[in-house]
Amino acid sequence: MEKMSFAERLLERGRGCNSLLCVGLDPVWERLPEAIRREPDPVLAFNRAVVEATVPWACAFKPNIAFYEALGPAGLEALRRTIAFIHRQTEALVIIDAKRADVGHTAAAYARALFDLLETDAVTLNPYLGGDALGPFLKRPEKGCFILCRTSNPGAGEFQDLPVNGRPLYLVVAERVRQWNERGNCGLVVGATFPEELAQVRATCPGMPLLIPGVGAQQGDLARAVQAGMDGRGEGILVNASRSILYASSGSDFAEAAARAARELCEAIQAARSREQRSG
Amino acid sequence: MEKMSFAERLLERGRGCNSLLCVGLDPVWERLPEAIRREPDPVLAFNRAVVEATVPWACAFKPNIAFYEALGPAGLEALRRTIAFIHRQTEALVIIDAKRADVGHTAAAYARALFDLLETDAVTLNPYLGGDALGPFLKRPEKGCFILCRTSNPGAGEFQDLPVNGRPLYLVVAERVRQWNERGNCGLVVGATFPEELAQVRATCPGMPLLIPGVGAQQGDLARAVQAGMDGRGEGILVNASRSILYASSGSDFAEAAARAARELCEAIQAARSREQRSG
Repeated sequence: MEKMSFAERLLERGRGCNSLLCVGLDPVWERLPEAIRREPDPVLAFNRAVVEATVPWACAFKPNIAFYEALGPAGLEALRRTIAFIHRQTEALVIIDAKRADVGHTAAAYARALFDLLETDAVTLNPYLGGDALGPFLKRPEKGCFILCRTSNPGAGEFQDLPVNGRPLYLVVAERVRQWNERGNCGLVVGATFPEELAQVRATCPGMPLLIPGVGAQQGDLARAVQAGMDGRGEGILVNASRSILYASSGSDFAEAAARAARELCEAIQAARSREQRSG
Repeated sequence: MEKMSFAERLLERGRGCNSLLCVGLDPVWERLPEAIRREPDPVLAFNRAVVEATVPWACAFKPNIAFYEALGPAGLEALRRTIAFIHRQTEALVIIDAKRADVGHTAAAYARALFDLLETDAVTLNPYLGGDALGPFLKRPEKGCFILCRTSNPGAGEFQDLPVNGRPLYLVVAERVRQWNERGNCGLVVGATFPEELAQVRATCPGMPLLIPGVGAQQGDLARAVQAGMDGRGEGILVNASRSILYASSGSDFAEAAARAARELCEAIQAARSREQRSG
């Protein structure tokens, strides 16, 4: 049997768990609960508890590798063990938010680090160097590549909105990624904080998965983002929240609080999907 | 005494060693000499030997972090120890080639990992997310930020050459970085493989340090790149070579061969500088 493409894996998982929620796993030492900080491997203990508590509502988990790098080599080992735990105990997909890009043979080293050593199912990538620089990632059909398109930060437009022959750069990126997607493994990252831009990206790439950060601590409007981002079948999006789930409580009930926050967000996404389907 | 800005540190080091050469430290397991692979910490042993052999001609060393990540947590520990060795034993600057960029609080985690844990003097960064996303890096005057402008890969122009109001995107990036440079810590990365673009960037940013990869294995024309890139004082560039120095010999004489390759490249850069100064 041929391996499934990443797009097929994502679709299957989203339908299987009936959720389009992605839970960001971004551990910040100062925000870990007291009891967790006394564990022998605090980051792994925190992540395991959050994964176990939220997985019924999590299509995917998205660790941002920056937070692990900031903890030194032990942090990266905790990331590796977290991912192994997710694969062993759950059906959820793992997306490492790494925003990588480099020239050919260096990109191959990154692909090895992320896909083969850390065993992630997908990564985020930066388009600025062009498609040839992302080749070592794109050639793996079973691994997902979410390419930055319109990011969620306040200054995202500084370059991404620049006019290129009358269209903003981020839409040129979206079009190119559509061409790079011959193996069915590409997606785009579009912030929930800019729903109009999100609708433009969806119109440009009707069938491509969109990873949508920025609905939690970054205050994007969830219902507008879901309605702008979902595809014609009411699917094709992954809505990510990190801090609003991980740190829903700073006490010993952090896992229950994370589960509650994940369930509420999952249900709010479902409500926004069906509202759109009714009104559409 | 106030700390020197990164631009001042770079100028001082370049004058002190009378070299504008940057030696890339990109260890690839398969290419390490037999004898080195039997060492208890092979990557550190290789890097130490290369640093000791080439430092008379090296203004800076540039490890690309991808090659260390591809070796797992031990690789990153070898990078940390390599940098500590360079700081302890030499006056050369360290630039981690990481091409990072992320939204605010995540960029702060990367800055902590690179500037504080790994103790690099400078990093490379990706501009696509805009200046606000790079804030945690830019706010450190003593640390250098080399921002990707026109990269050395064959497909670099896919986005970087797109016309924005009649000018290519990479020149818009160069202009913005000039504005971000209020603390004297910014530079630009421009590949030696495109000397005409390099001249355009120099014209746009007359005083900014340029990090120029692509003269070794990537076959850029050294003399043209030096002449196009150097500033009005015949300085302001760092010419990087990695593989052509590191792997000049695969035998037990690798360090001597690296020293010879570094000296030759340093002298070729000096010759190109003075040729320009004569003809200019």
